[in-house]
Amino acid sequence: MDHDRAHPTVGEVGEWGLIGHITAQLPQGDQILIGPGDDAAVVRFPDGQVVATTDLAVEGIHFRREWSSAYEVGIKIAAANLADCAAMGARATALLIGLAAPAELPLTWASECAEGIRDEAARVGASVVGGDTVKSDRLMISITALGSLDARSPVTRSGARAGDRVLLSGPVGGSAAGLALLLADQADVDPDLVRQHRAPQPDHEMGPRLAQAGATAMCDVSDGLLADLGHIARASGVRIRLDSEKFSTAALSSAATALEIDPLIWFLAGGEDHVLVATLPRQSTAPEGVLEIGEVVEGDPGVEVPGVDLASIPKGFDHF
Amino acid sequence: MDHDRAHPTVGEVGEWGLIGHITAQLPQGDQILIGPGDDAAVVRFPDGQVVATTDLAVEGIHFRREWSSAYEVGIKIAAANLADCAAMGARATALLIGLAAPAELPLTWASECAEGIRDEAARVGASVVGGDTVKSDRLMISITALGSLDARSPVTRSGARAGDRVLLSGPVGGSAAGLALLLADQADVDPDLVRQHRAPQPDHEMGPRLAQAGATAMCDVSDGLLADLGHIARASGVRIRLDSEKFSTAALSSAATALEIDPLIWFLAGGEDHVLVATLPRQSTAPEGVLEIGEVVEGDPGVEVPGVDLASIPKGFDHF
Repeated sequence: MDHDRAHPTVGEVGEWGLIGHITAQLPQGDQILIGPGDDAAVVRFPDGQVVATTDLAVEGIHFRREWSSAYEVGIKIAAANLADCAAMGARATALLIGLAAPAELPLTWASECAEGIRDEAARVGASVVGGDTVKSDRLMISITALGSLDARSPVTRSGARAGDRVLLSGPVGGSAAGLALLLADQADVDPDLVRQHRAPQPDHEMGPRLAQAGATAMCDVSDGLLADLGHIARASGVRIRLDSEKFSTAALSSAATALEIDPLIWFLAGGEDHVLVATLPRQSTAPEGVLEIGEVVEGDPGVEVPGVDLASIPKGFDHF
Repeated sequence: MDHDRAHPTVGEVGEWGLIGHITAQLPQGDQILIGPGDDAAVVRFPDGQVVATTDLAVEGIHFRREWSSAYEVGIKIAAANLADCAAMGARATALLIGLAAPAELPLTWASECAEGIRDEAARVGASVVGGDTVKSDRLMISITALGSLDARSPVTRSGARAGDRVLLSGPVGGSAAGLALLLADQADVDPDLVRQHRAPQPDHEMGPRLAQAGATAMCDVSDGLLADLGHIARASGVRIRLDSEKFSTAALSSAATALEIDPLIWFLAGGEDHVLVATLPRQSTAPEGVLEIGEVVEGDPGVEVPGVDLASIPKGFDHF
């Protein structure tokens, strides 16, 4: 292998060089008592409750280096992890990163990915407080987020009640549409959808805001809207009835036309948008910017969309 | 691929089958407000301080399926992670697991590995509260531990002061000696050392005990005693002088004789024992069972062992 001192690989700088390079650029928030560099980090949670969630992202499965920049990969995996925190009604304060990397990975790739994670975390005021780096022939990243409920109760998937409205915190289907454009080599049809696939940037603060508004159940749209609402329906023992007239698929239309696909498929089954779907009692005031798409009703646990043949919609994503 | 219903793979049961199988056997401690099954877990930390650390383990680098059972791999990676918590003086309460697995991995392997993690966690009263499963051609496991300081201050690497004693919480070198026996195909020379490599079981409770005793600096022996004491010496700005007459290498002697290796190399540079090394003021009472191996002195930051040529001892492990 040629040595190029201006563009070293992680193998050339070694484990400590890599860690030093990444941690040099990590600001630490007020809640961080001990940041990177010791055996473990220490984070303050004044209310004594900690929300914790972990995610793995594998090259070739969750991202492709030829499709996304390192910075975009960092944004995307952090966004997915922060969304899980937000879905409990929490505000993330600390992230831990694991990087399993081939020795020949350029150091710039590792540091730009860490910058993407850091910047996505900074959008909610969270700090990267620690991590681990190991060698692996397959590039893989783990992220763990710790979040604060600020003394509120967590919002689980099991509290939805008949009569509640069903709300979306942002648009869905864009990530799947962007992926479809990439797969068809037609990224230029709608670069914004492609960006939503490469580096979704959902508004994580909608999580605490929906919790404060009184959300009875919540989760993020990672597997697809129908699949994720199915989790809420089963956990809560309720039926969810969506109103297709309230679906907004206008932003998906140019991609749908180009690829001759019904945009409803992306809207209902797309996944990876990492916006939130929540149920809220009818008398509660919904935060500004949410989209009402249906209601919770009595009946067999499940999701229905009157007028839409759900048999034609793919099931949610299964990793295996 | 032949389907064998008695011995399904993770690909055959799918992501939800795998998660259901693993989480069915996970008891949840009193501090766990929300365990597996929602977007995130919620854990109670009454003192408002949370110790957090994450580790990655890659097949072929950190473990080999032909050398270790799935249960042993679970024990080993949990022990390493819990040791990082203990090294801050904390008691682990919650673990999150990430499993990246090939579709053809037997379901029993995944569940037995999870049982190893669960049982090692149970030794300190910690619960597995959540995780993530993804497909990958390379088997890899991430673990994150959250620990409680029970209102004590964390013990960092930077508090060692001249005059302090240097203490080991347990034997070191055994994991490296066991690995050397495995590599030489001589596991039968000392099965206990091989077990220490496959599934180290350090006494994690020594962490809180040493912290209570007044430890000024602490870390776990993961990279090798010299390397890990080097971290403390540099972070604290002190010199550490070890007394080779106090080293105990008797347990390593049969392996050393069989392989014609100086057991001091394993003792000083072995790593992966995950016992703790700490500095303690001379007037403090050390917990029972610790081994005093040296003292902190004034001088250039570093580690010295009078009478031993450290140039002949390998440096600590670098992953790249």
